[in-house]
Amino acid sequence: MKKYKLIIAYDGTQYSGWQMQPNALSIQEVLEEKLKVLTKTRTSLTGAGRTDAGVHAIGQVAHFKVEAPFNPSLLRLSLNGLLPKDIRIMDVEEVPLDFHARYSATNKIYYYHLNLGPVQDPFEKQYSWNITNSLNMELLKKGISYLIGTHNFSAFANEANQGAAKKNPIRTLKRISVVPERIGMRLEFEGESFLYKMVRNMTGTLIDVAKGKLSPEEIKKILESKDRRNAGRAAPAKGLFLVRIDYVSNPLKS
Amino acid sequence: MKKYKLIIAYDGTQYSGWQMQPNALSIQEVLEEKLKVLTKTRTSLTGAGRTDAGVHAIGQVAHFKVEAPFNPSLLRLSLNGLLPKDIRIMDVEEVPLDFHARYSATNKIYYYHLNLGPVQDPFEKQYSWNITNSLNMELLKKGISYLIGTHNFSAFANEANQGAAKKNPIRTLKRISVVPERIGMRLEFEGESFLYKMVRNMTGTLIDVAKGKLSPEEIKKILESKDRRNAGRAAPAKGLFLVRIDYVSNPLKS
Repeated sequence: MKKYKLIIAYDGTQYSGWQMQPNALSIQEVLEEKLKVLTKTRTSLTGAGRTDAGVHAIGQVAHFKVEAPFNPSLLRLSLNGLLPKDIRIMDVEEVPLDFHARYSATNKIYYYHLNLGPVQDPFEKQYSWNITNSLNMELLKKGISYLIGTHNFSAFANEANQGAAKKNPIRTLKRISVVPERIGMRLEFEGESFLYKMVRNMTGTLIDVAKGKLSPEEIKKILESKDRRNAGRAAPAKGLFLVRIDYVSNPLKS
Repeated sequence: MKKYKLIIAYDGTQYSGWQMQPNALSIQEVLEEKLKVLTKTRTSLTGAGRTDAGVHAIGQVAHFKVEAPFNPSLLRLSLNGLLPKDIRIMDVEEVPLDFHARYSATNKIYYYHLNLGPVQDPFEKQYSWNITNSLNMELLKKGISYLIGTHNFSAFANEANQGAAKKNPIRTLKRISVVPERIGMRLEFEGESFLYKMVRNMTGTLIDVAKGKLSPEEIKKILESKDRRNAGRAAPAKGLFLVRIDYVSNPLKS
């Protein structure tokens, strides 16, 4: 028995999200179908986390177990040969059998891309949120300061009464950086893990703050309320990228 | 009579190129159709230069004349409201009646995007040329050094016996810069003007040099031969972006 870790990039535009769903094509489904061709057996893939319909990834991670060993480079080449061009395997590594794409993760980075100004860049129409209002960067940074640190993030989580969020809604947000881009900027979010829709809900609320519709201090009150209805609307899926997931170093890596 | 200058960005993936063609949808055609809606009269648009099918632009420039004056900001907003999202008007300015999008241009910048390494970035599949061979950067830079300066570029021009190239195939190439990108690099080309397909032909030939298939010194011989058949194949259209066109400062700009 061998276990392999995949680093996967995908343009989520045409998919129903990472996770398998009835009557809609998911990234996971496409990958499992191609893995079945290569391994000649039904192979289930465990992702580090779901991404919603339209969300993109540069560094999604998933693992699978298989009886026969594979050469990692050949596995990457073969999978990319079978996959559609909007899903790419960036790297394959053999990992110890106790590795788990979700539970072994130590850190995650997401980017949220904002296209600012009157005209949306034609190259970013599927990859950013276009905001035509002028934004107050001082208010934005003040708003960000209330989110950084360890908090109960229930107010920024969808489905807060289910699964991981119900068990433990406390998360530590290490960093939100504001980085200028060609037409606009991105918000970089870094933390050990995130609740469901937490990045998009934080982004939507922060943009309300930057527009002057909500005072930065309201963020503190929203967090304390633990009530999702108090935060702003989720930012659109298409601006969100899962960029990197970190793990402890792999003892099997050549 | 008023004259307006448009700065246009477009994703060329779905179009037959800038220029009007029978039986294929061009950027120019789409723009003229929308201008006709706004001006209520057939309005012909003069571009700074044609871009081929699949070539993209961030800073294409075109001008048109019209009887009635328009407010430039409203014209931009109205056009963007009518245009498909893969063609965007980035800026509108009133210009003097002697302004000409092609003949008044003093400088042009093109980028050619190269996706390097074994896996093509899924976000760049329509916007870069994927090269899996390893490239020798020293050879590439040596090859570039032979192209910089004032030369007869006939060997790097398609249709060298027609139009502008036949009249005068001498061009001055000011700069080719190699700039690293997330997965790969771009070549930045800057010059007063370029012959037809010159950037793509230079890129294809430079990549042959960087692969070791052609010695850098051959570039000098190819230039001197003035024969298109001696240079390498044109790099694919999808990696090319028309980025910026410069003009003398506009006396009518507010």
